[in-house]
Amino acid sequence: MLKIVGVGICDGQITERAAKIISEAEVVFGSKRAISLASKYIRGKIFEIKKFEKEVYSEIEKIGAEKNVVVLSTGDPMVAGLGSKIRGTVEPGISSVQMALAKVKEDLCNVVVIDAHAKSAENEFDLIDRKNLLILADKNFDPSVFGKKRAALIENICGNERFVLGRAEDLEIRSDYVIVFVWR
Amino acid sequence: MLKIVGVGICDGQITERAAKIISEAEVVFGSKRAISLASKYIRGKIFEIKKFEKEVYSEIEKIGAEKNVVVLSTGDPMVAGLGSKIRGTVEPGISSVQMALAKVKEDLCNVVVIDAHAKSAENEFDLIDRKNLLILADKNFDPSVFGKKRAALIENICGNERFVLGRAEDLEIRSDYVIVFVWR
Repeated sequence: MLKIVGVGICDGQITERAAKIISEAEVVFGSKRAISLASKYIRGKIFEIKKFEKEVYSEIEKIGAEKNVVVLSTGDPMVAGLGSKIRGTVEPGISSVQMALAKVKEDLCNVVVIDAHAKSAENEFDLIDRKNLLILADKNFDPSVFGKKRAALIENICGNERFVLGRAEDLEIRSDYVIVFVWR
Repeated sequence: MLKIVGVGICDGQITERAAKIISEAEVVFGSKRAISLASKYIRGKIFEIKKFEKEVYSEIEKIGAEKNVVVLSTGDPMVAGLGSKIRGTVEPGISSVQMALAKVKEDLCNVVVIDAHAKSAENEFDLIDRKNLLILADKNFDPSVFGKKRAALIENICGNERFVLGRAEDLEIRSDYVIVFVWR
């Protein structure tokens, strides 16, 4: 049995359901950060995932066929997460997208979420003509493509948060884990 | 102080952070369902919201200026929720959108979420040419507009769940709280 469980992105964001599933697992896989967030619930053997690759996922799936396995996913497994990459049932968690929407007070139904983290997503930027855009980005992303549109930048959501409101072209990205929100 | 707190949509989906915020509130507002989901954490006075209208929200905001108020929101406050309608800080919760994505195993970054619950959203349906669509719908929604496209229907997510995979035109909606997922 294999379950992919969202552990949120900040301390204290694990749901009761997720905590129970984690505590019942014989084997727990996850990134260092995910393991740290879930540590007080883990009773089984812990394996840190260091390479996020297909071969690793296949190996985990094999173990899941034999044992009660949980794969921890920071945030929500279905938001730029492991849920679509590993076979198994998914238990949701709080994602950085939700934290960002809470900050800018915009409803998900008025937004298109774009993954531009460690990849190009330029072919989706024209969707700004239809909805607000929430872009998962890194230092390579250039907000100036959206010119003078109203925008927000959110870095270090759980820690020493940096939240900047302004024109898209004026935003200055300092970290490799950043959310850029652009209003239509 | 006013906080709008997501309580998830099924039992056991409240996060540790949300539980703490709820337990510290002097006054708690929410729908019958939201109050039921959060009941074990509530210590303050409880007021059921029966009319979801601007006047009610203004009244709640006034009380929030005097006391430590929590407004409970089923699911996530920023997913067709109260977060964009009431002034206050938002604490995320697990939404029906997340439950549906977990079920169909599709990542939010490949999806546009559309609110067609108790309203028309036809002007957004052409976005199917760009991304998968996740539609919050009711009995008035007609999935056949998407013809023979691959689609899924999810009703009663936490209870006696009904999950149907098929062609969009063949899906039969039976309830007023339904999610229709249409693959691009």
